[in-house]
Amino acid sequence: MPRIWVIHGPNLNLLGRRQPELYGTSTLGDIDRRLAELARSAGVELCCYQSNHEGELVSWIQQAEGQAELLLLNPGAYTHTSVALRDALLACAVPAIEVHLTNPYRREPFRRRSLIADVVVGRVMGFGARSYEIALQGGLLLLAERGR
Amino acid sequence: MPRIWVIHGPNLNLLGRRQPELYGTSTLGDIDRRLAELARSAGVELCCYQSNHEGELVSWIQQAEGQAELLLLNPGAYTHTSVALRDALLACAVPAIEVHLTNPYRREPFRRRSLIADVVVGRVMGFGARSYEIALQGGLLLLAERGR
Amino acid sequence: MPRIWVIHGPNLNLLGRRQPELYGTSTLGDIDRRLAELARSAGVELCCYQSNHEGELVSWIQQAEGQAELLLLNPGAYTHTSVALRDALLACAVPAIEVHLTNPYRREPFRRRSLIADVVVGRVMGFGARSYEIALQGGLLLLAERGR
Amino acid sequence: MPRIWVIHGPNLNLLGRRQPELYGTSTLGDIDRRLAELARSAGVELCCYQSNHEGELVSWIQQAEGQAELLLLNPGAYTHTSVALRDALLACAVPAIEVHLTNPYRREPFRRRSLIADVVVGRVMGFGARSYEIALQGGLLLLAERGR
Amino acid sequence: MPRIWVIHGPNLNLLGRRQPELYGTSTLGDIDRRLAELARSAGVELCCYQSNHEGELVSWIQQAEGQAELLLLNPGAYTHTSVALRDALLACAVPAIEVHLTNPYRREPFRRRSLIADVVVGRVMGFGARSYEIALQGGLLLLAERGR
Amino acid sequence: MPRIWVIHGPNLNLLGRRQPELYGTSTLGDIDRRLAELARSAGVELCCYQSNHEGELVSWIQQAEGQAELLLLNPGAYTHTSVALRDALLACAVPAIEVHLTNPYRREPFRRRSLIADVVVGRVMGFGARSYEIALQGGLLLLAERGR
Amino acid sequence: MPRIWVIHGPNLNLLGRRQPELYGTSTLGDIDRRLAELARSAGVELCCYQSNHEGELVSWIQQAEGQAELLLLNPGAYTHTSVALRDALLACAVPAIEVHLTNPYRREPFRRRSLIADVVVGRVMGFGARSYEIALQGGLLLLAERGR
Amino acid sequence: MPRIWVIHGPNLNLLGRRQPELYGTSTLGDIDRRLAELARSAGVELCCYQSNHEGELVSWIQQAEGQAELLLLNPGAYTHTSVALRDALLACAVPAIEVHLTNPYRREPFRRRSLIADVVVGRVMGFGARSYEIALQGGLLLLAERGR
Amino acid sequence: MPRIWVIHGPNLNLLGRRQPELYGTSTLGDIDRRLAELARSAGVELCCYQSNHEGELVSWIQQAEGQAELLLLNPGAYTHTSVALRDALLACAVPAIEVHLTNPYRREPFRRRSLIADVVVGRVMGFGARSYEIALQGGLLLLAERGR
Amino acid sequence: MPRIWVIHGPNLNLLGRRQPELYGTSTLGDIDRRLAELARSAGVELCCYQSNHEGELVSWIQQAEGQAELLLLNPGAYTHTSVALRDALLACAVPAIEVHLTNPYRREPFRRRSLIADVVVGRVMGFGARSYEIALQGGLLLLAERGR
Amino acid sequence: MPRIWVIHGPNLNLLGRRQPELYGTSTLGDIDRRLAELARSAGVELCCYQSNHEGELVSWIQQAEGQAELLLLNPGAYTHTSVALRDALLACAVPAIEVHLTNPYRREPFRRRSLIADVVVGRVMGFGARSYEIALQGGLLLLAERGR
Amino acid sequence: MPRIWVIHGPNLNLLGRRQPELYGTSTLGDIDRRLAELARSAGVELCCYQSNHEGELVSWIQQAEGQAELLLLNPGAYTHTSVALRDALLACAVPAIEVHLTNPYRREPFRRRSLIADVVVGRVMGFGARSYEIALQGGLLLLAERGR
Repeated sequence: MPRIWVIHGPNLNLLGRRQPELYGTSTLGDIDRRLAELARSAGVELCCYQSNHEGELVSWIQQAEGQAELLLLNPGAYTHTSVALRDALLACAVPAIEVHLTNPYRREPFRRRSLIADVVVGRVMGFGARSYEIALQGGLLLLAERGR
Repeated sequence: MPRIWVIHGPNLNLLGRRQPELYGTSTLGDIDRRLAELARSAGVELCCYQSNHEGELVSWIQQAEGQAELLLLNPGAYTHTSVALRDALLACAVPAIEVHLTNPYRREPFRRRSLIADVVVGRVMGFGARSYEIALQGGLLLLAERGR
Repeated sequence: MPRIWVIHGPNLNLLGRRQPELYGTSTLGDIDRRLAELARSAGVELCCYQSNHEGELVSWIQQAEGQAELLLLNPGAYTHTSVALRDALLACAVPAIEVHLTNPYRREPFRRRSLIADVVVGRVMGFGARSYEIALQGGLLLLAERGR
Repeated sequence: MPRIWVIHGPNLNLLGRRQPELYGTSTLGDIDRRLAELARSAGVELCCYQSNHEGELVSWIQQAEGQAELLLLNPGAYTHTSVALRDALLACAVPAIEVHLTNPYRREPFRRRSLIADVVVGRVMGFGARSYEIALQGGLLLLAERGR
Repeated sequence: MPRIWVIHGPNLNLLGRRQPELYGTSTLGDIDRRLAELARSAGVELCCYQSNHEGELVSWIQQAEGQAELLLLNPGAYTHTSVALRDALLACAVPAIEVHLTNPYRREPFRRRSLIADVVVGRVMGFGARSYEIALQGGLLLLAERGR
Repeated sequence: MPRIWVIHGPNLNLLGRRQPELYGTSTLGDIDRRLAELARSAGVELCCYQSNHEGELVSWIQQAEGQAELLLLNPGAYTHTSVALRDALLACAVPAIEVHLTNPYRREPFRRRSLIADVVVGRVMGFGARSYEIALQGGLLLLAERGR
Repeated sequence: MPRIWVIHGPNLNLLGRRQPELYGTSTLGDIDRRLAELARSAGVELCCYQSNHEGELVSWIQQAEGQAELLLLNPGAYTHTSVALRDALLACAVPAIEVHLTNPYRREPFRRRSLIADVVVGRVMGFGARSYEIALQGGLLLLAERGR
Repeated sequence: MPRIWVIHGPNLNLLGRRQPELYGTSTLGDIDRRLAELARSAGVELCCYQSNHEGELVSWIQQAEGQAELLLLNPGAYTHTSVALRDALLACAVPAIEVHLTNPYRREPFRRRSLIADVVVGRVMGFGARSYEIALQGGLLLLAERGR
Repeated sequence: MPRIWVIHGPNLNLLGRRQPELYGTSTLGDIDRRLAELARSAGVELCCYQSNHEGELVSWIQQAEGQAELLLLNPGAYTHTSVALRDALLACAVPAIEVHLTNPYRREPFRRRSLIADVVVGRVMGFGARSYEIALQGGLLLLAERGR
Repeated sequence: MPRIWVIHGPNLNLLGRRQPELYGTSTLGDIDRRLAELARSAGVELCCYQSNHEGELVSWIQQAEGQAELLLLNPGAYTHTSVALRDALLACAVPAIEVHLTNPYRREPFRRRSLIADVVVGRVMGFGARSYEIALQGGLLLLAERGR
Repeated sequence: MPRIWVIHGPNLNLLGRRQPELYGTSTLGDIDRRLAELARSAGVELCCYQSNHEGELVSWIQQAEGQAELLLLNPGAYTHTSVALRDALLACAVPAIEVHLTNPYRREPFRRRSLIADVVVGRVMGFGARSYEIALQGGLLLLAERGR
Repeated sequence: MPRIWVIHGPNLNLLGRRQPELYGTSTLGDIDRRLAELARSAGVELCCYQSNHEGELVSWIQQAEGQAELLLLNPGAYTHTSVALRDALLACAVPAIEVHLTNPYRREPFRRRSLIADVVVGRVMGFGARSYEIALQGGLLLLAERGR
């Protein structure tokens, strides 16, 4: 039974309360619950984590090796500044999908730069809270093709 | 019954034959057929177009207004150079999703620049031929939320 | 009796319908009609063309040589990317005036770059549909001064 | 009876004498006289000013508010370096048109940068001394459309 | 009774000991004591925090919402690199003032870039340990004007 | 009895009338009056100057030497373009504080560059008309510490 | 019997008439005839194409696969802007040689950038109409060495 | 008896398991053991730390003052992004040597930038796990020369 | 009898008093006196001007035409920012020599850019107050060679 | 009887031994012999030189004037760094052709910059050891056309 | 018995005399003597060379092949400008270690660029004359690991 | 009796023959003779050197220490590329004056960069062959002021 880890970065704990015109009204709890349902019906196990600390995110990605077959990663603001996350992804053999609620390309110019864009397998962005579900479906298709 | 247009840009007619280690072995016909099935089961109408001509792609986007509720657009190489596609998207009120087979961020540096990234609603990339299916599901969720 | 060619680039066929808060409510037909009247009263012949194809615009500029004494050219989005239009203007001995409905300098940064700005005789922009009429008057003054 | 102010920047007092192969043989007096005639026949009042001092140009733009309905502004060399002129235009509610005798895009690269290009309504350049007349006609059309 | 939070970033715990020729001889305790007195005499409540951890700073800014009416924030080195702090400030409705002991523009070039400069209300820098007091007075004036 | 000079740059004479949503409704007279009161109660002498001319601002800074113990300088638009103001500040031994009504970092990108930021002692910005008062208080603290 | 395709890009149909001081007086017909003779004497088959349409050039390159053993490609102005040509060359297994009549490095700076320079086998430029003949000879040597 | 602190940054806890073709098969434990032996035979005391948290690394560097005579620092990914580490090194009077297992100049371009390169005494890189031993020997020579 | 104009830009009136360790102890009066003596013994007439106003410097350069055979110009800070001075030099047929007391290349980076360096005949810098005398001698040699 | 000089730059003496997968197995002697045969059959005289010293290459180019009618120049690594070679080519009236064994555009980015590309007549690259022969043929055609 | 070549670049012959506060008081002879002792005790043969000529350094690197098992290379100023040295290192199969007396990152910005940093095995810098000894020890460890 | 060394860089041996419209008709011999006369009448000893080799120029500058009191250096093309010359000047305590026949700022953009501009005392350029004489006079004044 494959396991999938979902890792949420800084400020995502505020979802639902933070700039709802931009990020929508779903809370992180809502998102995790919907993902869990989707996972259950697809027969996979799912764990969700959130932290505002870059170092903690690094440690979770390290621990995913041998624990998970797929990562869904929304690094939030660290997308644009963290080489450490990139190195953790390079060090860890688990394929990852980069997820964003908004489309960062419609925002400030510095959000156009992602330090992990070229070390993830796929990228999904701009579908609001639904981005996670779409990414999960994409990840399941990838796992299926790799003959899981 | 909502209609969705899928528009494929230059060189995508070569799929299956063109650098299969990069783009996979599905032909464009295979992709269009799978999308058509998915559409049928979701109760939406689907039309697919391909051209190597920037001008023809512009004209199709222009004509989509009033004809379609959603665009799936893979502008291929024009992603990186075409202001005309961008203008057509701006002029046309139909929401669009940018789709790529590969993850352009893993390739040459100039492929990191997308002239339409900030005028589309969402972006999906890196899932091979599956990118279209995932984008279609994301688009259907968006249409549903907008109460269509 | 001097002849003047007016060449409209991509997406200008949408005028009146496309982002009217930006481009106004005149259609391309309205503009061409007003230019034709102005031309008639000034005793010059006027032909108008529009295409979304970069290649077709190039061909028209090539054919203008020996057919026209002046070009009014609104290259739309190709203003910012087309070296081919620039080369066609360099190859063709007919003086040209660059026309824009809006003032591109009030829009996205990449619209500040014009690849033809230094090979045209004059530039007129920001007067909405009237930009064409003003450019036509300026062009007639230039032709008069060159003794034709 | 609408009033229009024409403001000439540094070195324009040398017109006719300064690099005539570039700027033509009309003096600033000639230009002002032709504009005055054009204004009279259109039923508008016209005042002309010239200074080599950035601060004086700033002060005139400030004073235009409540005195003029339109500015024709040729800031000469200050086009490329003056944030103060830009701020004066932003502070003053009178619409302005940027005018140049030559086409600056055919000259040194630093002349491609205009600090006011995005705060004026329209731009006219490259028609020699005629640029002012064309700009005046464009400005009158704009005033007419705004229902003056 | 309004509450104000003062948040000190990395290495500020070394004040008094660290490069005294640059940062002065006041310790962080001295600064906090002087601010507390000033606050008491102005009838506001004041809390002070310090951390070397970016994630902890993010969490405090998140928690300020509903707890504080004003933030005084000296992000130290994270000024120049942290998008996460910026996002926390955007997510949190409390107005913030950026404070620096030194004038960063007199130091290494990379210190000229502040990722939060455009999301704070005001900025005060270069007055040594006094920068905090001045910023506090400015903040009190702002709160007063907003009618609190 | 220490003397302080306040020097206002171009377009600040329009305060109260110019873009009030940005700069507030206080006039320059109001600001100067409030500063005068503050100065009187602190036992310092205060003189205020304003000019739209870069050269005049340069001359005043030169004359401050031996006349003033502190400068409050709001160079307005010249902040971003004037090396001459910078040189005058370098040549003159009087410490200066840079003041801005708005936070320039929330505006056009070219306003992020200050040619004097690294030759002033401190900087205060973003507190509207209050920025001057806060800067004055900061300046008085600095003078006090320097043992005057 | 090996086949070689020669593909001429935009504005090359004007050769002989277009800026002869730059491009010489040979027409495209002259060039194609000389190449045909050279090919005949070398025992290879030769086909020549010209188009002003980027899309048409892309299509020909696509069709070359299986039809030709070598491409001589002069992309004209598209050299500097077309990612689509680059992708077509990458997708097609036929080796290509980039040809230019003039030496683009002696012209405007933007002509120094070639988007295909690193995906062709060789480059020949600056020998006028003779560049094609030299490139053909170089190509024949390469084919010979590859054992065909 | 001099004390030396060795501080390892993020992802170095994975050594031996992480990309062994790049980083070799020694674990961090192996490295620390070899360093300890070397230290013992040279009569110095040695302590080793590792963390994925930028803030924790900052704190250790702060605490080194008065505790250690020399730092060996491999900041891993934080080399390229952390101003906070730089500030800690500046604040702390202990000389430091920058160590890397690989030669970062043979990897991605952004790894060529080190924010601490100009505040350390020396740099050693590219000798795999041996880089630490060499750096230790260099550090001992430096300490010896400084007469400790 | 040839006439030479010496034009001093902003802040040069402070010479002798301003940063003497950088600019030396000669006053502007001293320099002008020494130049006058040199001129007298060489049989040329010499006039000296100084202003802090860019516009005034522009006007003097304009008036030099027909009045002077040579300009010695030290534009001070305007060297780096004034297109207006450049235009005045271009408009005026009198050859000019650029003079600096210091070597600007040993100072801040922005002083490496001179907007007039390519429109003057020669440049002399770094000899302190002696730079003027050397430039005068060079100018006299040039005048002699031009047969005057 | 025309004379042609072939000048080989640094490291080309290693040909055949140096990175044969990149540069092929022909030695410099082989290349010079084939060129000599080609020259003999074309009735021209040919001399070949090689040096690792920039200054020696400069001297040979200087001496070519009056000795040779054509230069074939492969400056190797100095292509990208030597202004002195460029100046020698400018000073010497002999037309030159730039030759490279490999296609530098397929290698490191800094090899895309050639300091002589715009002062040579033609360029040939990417045909391995054959590049020299092709360039020689191109040069002979040029000499023939110039009527020699 | 392995052989090691030490190659010193330009100006290193001045060591001991040249800026001793920066480079120390050891002469090049001192350094070579200490290296020779170290080599003798490790049972390796050592040869030392110095030249101010780029071309001579290139030739020595070429000759090292087959003569030496390891290079210690301090290219001095050529570090930052010489592609020819880089090419020689690429052409020669002997592993090299880059050595600097000072830490170039503490000096002028252009010294941060090394054209050979990514073609050497390791780099050692900042230990003064000791840098060579440390590099030698590192090189011996590398040779040992490679089984020689 | 003070000694002055004059060092001429690459291609200057061609003076009089090389591009005389740019460099004039004086040969290097003429220049050296005029300088020798000037030196004799001023009672100083003068030696002149020329080389096309960067390394030789470096060596001469090294040897100047203790032999000369002043250097006149025209590094020709090496001005723009040689860090080695810069290092030699830094290492050698003799003050140097940079001389150019032409004004490099009127030529190609890359000639605007001088790697030695900030390590020489003064700079003279644009007076043709006379630049040397003027520089010599300036140098004598400097030596006189330094009390020699």
